[in-house]
Amino acid sequence: MTNVKSEREEYLNKVNEIDFGNEAPKEIDSTDFFTVVKERRSVRHYDPSYQMTDNEIKELLEIAIQAPSSSNLQPWRFLVIKDQDTKQKLLPIANNQQQVVDASVVIAVLGDIKAYKNADRIYDELVEKGMMTQEVKDFYVGSIVKNYGNFPEEVATKVAMIDGGLVSMQLMLAAKAKGLDTVPMGGFDQAKFVEAFNVPENFKPVMLISVGKGVKAGFEKVRLTLDEVVTWEKY
Amino acid sequence: MTNVKSEREEYLNKVNEIDFGNEAPKEIDSTDFFTVVKERRSVRHYDPSYQMTDNEIKELLEIAIQAPSSSNLQPWRFLVIKDQDTKQKLLPIANNQQQVVDASVVIAVLGDIKAYKNADRIYDELVEKGMMTQEVKDFYVGSIVKNYGNFPEEVATKVAMIDGGLVSMQLMLAAKAKGLDTVPMGGFDQAKFVEAFNVPENFKPVMLISVGKGVKAGFEKVRLTLDEVVTWEKY
Repeated sequence: MTNVKSEREEYLNKVNEIDFGNEAPKEIDSTDFFTVVKERRSVRHYDPSYQMTDNEIKELLEIAIQAPSSSNLQPWRFLVIKDQDTKQKLLPIANNQQQVVDASVVIAVLGDIKAYKNADRIYDELVEKGMMTQEVKDFYVGSIVKNYGNFPEEVATKVAMIDGGLVSMQLMLAAKAKGLDTVPMGGFDQAKFVEAFNVPENFKPVMLISVGKGVKAGFEKVRLTLDEVVTWEKY
Repeated sequence: MTNVKSEREEYLNKVNEIDFGNEAPKEIDSTDFFTVVKERRSVRHYDPSYQMTDNEIKELLEIAIQAPSSSNLQPWRFLVIKDQDTKQKLLPIANNQQQVVDASVVIAVLGDIKAYKNADRIYDELVEKGMMTQEVKDFYVGSIVKNYGNFPEEVATKVAMIDGGLVSMQLMLAAKAKGLDTVPMGGFDQAKFVEAFNVPENFKPVMLISVGKGVKAGFEKVRLTLDEVVTWEKY
């Protein structure tokens, strides 16, 4: 036991020295896509008494997994942390960020670097639904197993991170569309997380996402201008 | 010059042996978030005569970059490929996937692994807007430069891929909300792409996204069930 905060913890919790005022996150009055995008913020202060049902959590995840993925292999895996005791266990691993315990749920997004092993099961469903012939399916699955199966771990991890990003964005937008708030967290001890939650070796952490009812609005969005991030035709 | 298709090219173009019929992608009758998510598909057949204005492209990107990112460093960089000659140049690099030339535009999403160098500029704006003090800003920027600046390339790349996934998802959804279609493409020769387009060394490819007016609907969504991808509390 120590009271000395790690540098990482100090960094992640410095945000609490900022006066966010008491204004709640803006309630959206419609589920219009452009409104949802505009009003989604990273919210770090949650109503600890607000609970989500398992069905509400499943609804969010069901929407999230409609995201596309490389060869439709859907490498995303989710660990849903909802019990208060489990959140308490996660708290120090996530550098004592209060939203871990105050939000209704923390969803750990992971990427399975062996997701190609599901190719047969996924492409079978395409055959069953009459979307491709057995022959085309056999070609796809053969290619996928050969190629993805031979990816160096670094390449497989990159794919899992990209697809993990896709599904995470859709999850956060879905939460906002349902009147909830989120914050994505990359600042946690991945090794300790994997150990504490017995995460399978081939599941690589993408991020943690707190989901719940925000009580203080997040920062106004500050973004680089398009001119700073967009180039036309050629560098 | 050779007529022998590479294995990768054969894999990526096998999809053209499938009869997609002539049904166009479903036109959405509202910009409701849940409708947009439901109707977004990976569309591979585009109307080559459909053009997007530069302003329409900028509008999509402006929406996309409202995504969150690690420490708000916004590592995403975009190369917009709109000229037909440039698309032709990209075509073989992207394994001759026809959507590269038929879609209105291809947006290459890249991740800057040195994005921390913009920390000062980004956090200055937070001070200017009264969202944090100079002292808090100095702490953040100091920490970011020290930490992100010391990331091994592999770690910096992972962060760039995750954030690149977030922004790509928001971009594809924004396109659908605007009545357009997209397809994310990971199957291209990254080394050749970097060379042909003179991509800065610190910009790592995330994906290519074709954007335009689809003429044939994409596959119906086939997804693993929630039970296959979700675990509760602990593995």
